[in-house]
Amino acid sequence: MPLTEKHSSKSFDNDLHECIDLFMAMGRMSAEQVTLATHALVDSNVELAKKVIEEDTKINQMEIKVDELVVLLVAKRQPTASDLRLVMALSKGVVDLERVGDEASKIARMACKLHKEGVSPRGYSEVQHLSNQVRVMLLEALDAFLRMDPEQAFSVLQSDEMVNEEYQSASRSLMTYVMEDSRHVSKVINILWVLRALERVGDHARNIAELVIYCTSGKDVRHTDFVTVEQAVQEASSLIASRNTAE
Amino acid sequence: MPLTEKHSSKSFDNDLHECIDLFMAMGRMSAEQVTLATHALVDSNVELAKKVIEEDTKINQMEIKVDELVVLLVAKRQPTASDLRLVMALSKGVVDLERVGDEASKIARMACKLHKEGVSPRGYSEVQHLSNQVRVMLLEALDAFLRMDPEQAFSVLQSDEMVNEEYQSASRSLMTYVMEDSRHVSKVINILWVLRALERVGDHARNIAELVIYCTSGKDVRHTDFVTVEQAVQEASSLIASRNTAE
Repeated sequence: MPLTEKHSSKSFDNDLHECIDLFMAMGRMSAEQVTLATHALVDSNVELAKKVIEEDTKINQMEIKVDELVVLLVAKRQPTASDLRLVMALSKGVVDLERVGDEASKIARMACKLHKEGVSPRGYSEVQHLSNQVRVMLLEALDAFLRMDPEQAFSVLQSDEMVNEEYQSASRSLMTYVMEDSRHVSKVINILWVLRALERVGDHARNIAELVIYCTSGKDVRHTDFVTVEQAVQEASSLIASRNTAE
Repeated sequence: MPLTEKHSSKSFDNDLHECIDLFMAMGRMSAEQVTLATHALVDSNVELAKKVIEEDTKINQMEIKVDELVVLLVAKRQPTASDLRLVMALSKGVVDLERVGDEASKIARMACKLHKEGVSPRGYSEVQHLSNQVRVMLLEALDAFLRMDPEQAFSVLQSDEMVNEEYQSASRSLMTYVMEDSRHVSKVINILWVLRALERVGDHARNIAELVIYCTSGKDVRHTDFVTVEQAVQEASSLIASRNTAE
């Protein structure tokens, strides 16, 4: 059932939707922060970088607010079964979104550093490429969360595998470059930190996707192999299909 | 009230203690993994490094188990007030402990890499020093959690400030070294990753300490300044003192 549809209790519904709305707003803002931080880095725009760092406070405050709402929801509404799984997923997912904000800040700090020390001779196209990919992944994961779509969540997990490979390959190529021409070593290391931060954003998107699979299948698919995850996704899809037929 | 003391409901008590025991075992194992990974790196012991990487699976499984117990606790016992805060803290803290395990694995993978490529000419004493510090921090945070001691938790937050400074200083000195002598750049970058992983372990210990302050004061002190945190700690200490007098 997409999260936009109604639940059994009206007051639970209202409280839950307030929490989900805030979670989604926080997610979209974190994704935007990653994009802006990347722009700041690629365009060496220090003003934009500073803005990203300042704005992170808002994401931090949103995290605290979501957690407050979660505790209130559990205390007042005492959810069970799928409602409880959803509330726990919000509590877990909010940590990932806050970390995405932190990674955006890190990238922005590197943008300031590179602006001061002079640009890196390499790595910007890799940064731009990886940033685009993890942004799409994060937005997909959030959309899968809102629609409670296990198949879409699964495709995020698949994208994360690709992102990890591209991160490894980009890192290796920068390391090789710097070993051959060491004049710019500190600048290139800053780009390596940025690539790492982006790879972490991909991991957080993956975590949110895993929460969608948990909510829809009831199975915790963290730390499991792809075959097991795929089974859980299929079970979740069957559950959803049979519920839709019954309605 | 230390977590070893009794709560109101006996069945809640039993379920909760099972969860806390597992949380503490997981915490001690993560701390041990960091220590072993550091040994593996410093002694270039690839067998030990491989063992650390293998053992991480156990920590991952413990995370899943703690979360299962948390969901059962909430669903069956419907805790409120301080019991609910504690249960939510277990759910949040377990993520940090799992990440500590991940950081230990990362360090172990770097140990394998350095064993293969040849040791780094610099950075081992800094790694050993930082590793000792974050290990103590993590054990202190876990002890503060078990005893629900806000003052001890606060001292972990203070240690984290020091660890962050030492990390910055060690990183800068390695960067300077590599800019002057670039022959070992890739090896030194591996040591930089290790230092970063250790600094992250310190952050996770800090997060657990913040959960202790949340449980004892009812205040969420994440993303706040030290003065506000100190006030929350004082309030928590007064609450504990007045409860002890009443008993």
